[in-house]
Amino acid sequence: MPSYFTSAPGKVILFGEHAVVYSKVATAGSLGLRSYNLVQERTDGAIEVNFPDVQLVRTWRSSDIPRQARWEGYPYPPSTMNTELVDQLTKFVDLAEHTNRSHAAVALLYLHSYLSTDEIASSGYDFSVRSDLPVGAGLGSSASYSVCLATALLQLNGHLSSSITAGWTVAEQRDLVNQWAFQAEKVIHGNPSGIDNTVSTLGGAVMFKKGEKIKPLPGFQSLRFLLTNTRVPRETQVQVANVRKLHDKFPNIVNPMLDAIHEISVSCEELFSQPGLDRSHLLTRFGELVDVNHGLLTALGVSHPVLEKVREISSRIGLKSKLTGAGGGGCALTLIRDDVSPETVAEVKRLLEAEGFQCMETQVGGHGAGILTLEQPMSIEEFLSHDKAYFEAATHNWTYFE
Amino acid sequence: MPSYFTSAPGKVILFGEHAVVYSKVATAGSLGLRSYNLVQERTDGAIEVNFPDVQLVRTWRSSDIPRQARWEGYPYPPSTMNTELVDQLTKFVDLAEHTNRSHAAVALLYLHSYLSTDEIASSGYDFSVRSDLPVGAGLGSSASYSVCLATALLQLNGHLSSSITAGWTVAEQRDLVNQWAFQAEKVIHGNPSGIDNTVSTLGGAVMFKKGEKIKPLPGFQSLRFLLTNTRVPRETQVQVANVRKLHDKFPNIVNPMLDAIHEISVSCEELFSQPGLDRSHLLTRFGELVDVNHGLLTALGVSHPVLEKVREISSRIGLKSKLTGAGGGGCALTLIRDDVSPETVAEVKRLLEAEGFQCMETQVGGHGAGILTLEQPMSIEEFLSHDKAYFEAATHNWTYFE
Repeated sequence: MPSYFTSAPGKVILFGEHAVVYSKVATAGSLGLRSYNLVQERTDGAIEVNFPDVQLVRTWRSSDIPRQARWEGYPYPPSTMNTELVDQLTKFVDLAEHTNRSHAAVALLYLHSYLSTDEIASSGYDFSVRSDLPVGAGLGSSASYSVCLATALLQLNGHLSSSITAGWTVAEQRDLVNQWAFQAEKVIHGNPSGIDNTVSTLGGAVMFKKGEKIKPLPGFQSLRFLLTNTRVPRETQVQVANVRKLHDKFPNIVNPMLDAIHEISVSCEELFSQPGLDRSHLLTRFGELVDVNHGLLTALGVSHPVLEKVREISSRIGLKSKLTGAGGGGCALTLIRDDVSPETVAEVKRLLEAEGFQCMETQVGGHGAGILTLEQPMSIEEFLSHDKAYFEAATHNWTYFE
Repeated sequence: MPSYFTSAPGKVILFGEHAVVYSKVATAGSLGLRSYNLVQERTDGAIEVNFPDVQLVRTWRSSDIPRQARWEGYPYPPSTMNTELVDQLTKFVDLAEHTNRSHAAVALLYLHSYLSTDEIASSGYDFSVRSDLPVGAGLGSSASYSVCLATALLQLNGHLSSSITAGWTVAEQRDLVNQWAFQAEKVIHGNPSGIDNTVSTLGGAVMFKKGEKIKPLPGFQSLRFLLTNTRVPRETQVQVANVRKLHDKFPNIVNPMLDAIHEISVSCEELFSQPGLDRSHLLTRFGELVDVNHGLLTALGVSHPVLEKVREISSRIGLKSKLTGAGGGGCALTLIRDDVSPETVAEVKRLLEAEGFQCMETQVGGHGAGILTLEQPMSIEEFLSHDKAYFEAATHNWTYFE
């Protein structure tokens, strides 16, 4: 009975939020906070889903699930989403529409429809997910789910092993995972940018620009951050519209600001491409870019008093912070240089948590999608009881598409 | 016995601080806070100076004062400062060197050397100044002193009336005051930019750019501000050096930021040149420029937690603030739109003062240098006992160079 863990990270925008709307380059990195999945074949023809983070617990008889299409083994999924199938599956799962639960279930069954072989479909499988990522915080939780899902179904149904037999490179396999994860993201979001699933699949950091292919940031080194969720809901649409208004009123002021933000990503890329640059120097420079980018976002009007509070508290101890994502609330990133003591980090966390914020120590730039083959099946209860430390234990030999 | 009041305003930078170092346009305005001077002829050949704000109280016998040069009536003062005379006068006044007191006394006697007629020098005069401007806060207190001084000595010695007889225009007389005030500023500062004395002489608002003539901002309307002195000393040299370092490290990022700041002054000029724009619309736009400029200054790294505190408190009540001057402490400006109630202003003041800041309600864009002829002499004690409201009483018919 094949049994696998899959895992995929969330993402944060490091530089370039908002400017990306105006065709400037932005930089995003994979987050140390991840989703973990257990997928394992059954014998009774049932598909059992457990995703406690979105209160999704369901068991279906595989033979009841509407299927329309099978993946014929051409390299990539069809480029357009099969909306008829999405509608059918939405009716079938019968969960409150437009909820995370319904989206997660439909995305699973949508990929099942394309990717499951007759053999796997008739034997059934368990599909369980647990995540360290807060949902709806702009940290790519749905992409991390989508990448786990694509990796799991490609692996369970033998598509990855047959691609290896067919001589595919690692990059091609990775692209296969990413494309199917993008399909799942389309089911969930309608019109995703593709950035979140790409960062989650590739890991590390990427640069992206409207209408151009997302490219990995070469030489990117893993960085430590304190990620602070202000618990003030971010307001993506409102903030994007406000920046548009400011831009239209004062194009001669706002355009060079967007150019400056663009150049922050370019400078970040240059920073990591200097092989001789020592780490502490690199971190100092990176912190300066963090500071400048936040100031420019403030100038664009997308900060919020709670985000400024994070800046104020962290700057007292010499740490650099910026908002990440659309702003108006949401999350902030605080760079933790290598020379910052654990006591200092604990002190900053204490001060931030005293403001009612939620803090997570994490890193940016780690692995992307991973697979771990289990030697024997695991109960769903056991899987769900494990924490991050268990999955990342040194004895676990994860395979990444690297 | 001729007896005059003269008066001149301080200045604030509205937009463009720091960018001006990189040859971008900046905007400054005259401040509602002013210095007031009483100058009146005596009969005993004494020159008595009272300037309580810098603890300067002195009486000299006019005949003891070293004089080297007389102004020969050519339009403007010599372009270079007479350093030998400055040295002589510094020794003569015998006040602790490099103090405000010593500078103020030397500047007075320096202009006395050039401008006093033999008749005035032998009769002597009282010269008293009181100021609403905090000293050393970047609000042009020394320029306001220098403009009072130049206006007073030009008036007392008949140079202004003889220039009128000679057919000089008001603009030429104003230029004469400004040039002599600039001389006094040179004595005080060594190498002043000339902006402070120009704003103080002209009033209203001006735009300026390195190497170009300072020009008045046409159509500028007087604006109300809350001026907050954070009481954290500003750090002009440190901040200018820090911006330089950031510029040199990341020229491709910082240059477009400086361009954006330049465009803020250009947009401000455009705002006031739209004759049809209603006042509330103008104030909203102006507030947006305030916000953007502060964000850009933050991005340049010259803000300070106390300045962010001013922003936070004022933004809670929907008011826009920016730091003014070099930053790293110093003062912030909060725009008071016409629709803001006195209760709201009082509330913001209360909150800011609770932080230990000093708040002054004032306006920007008022009159420049003024003269008022007194019908009878006034005692120095009486002069010094009067407040702003007395000098600005409606019954006082000040003459401005407008």
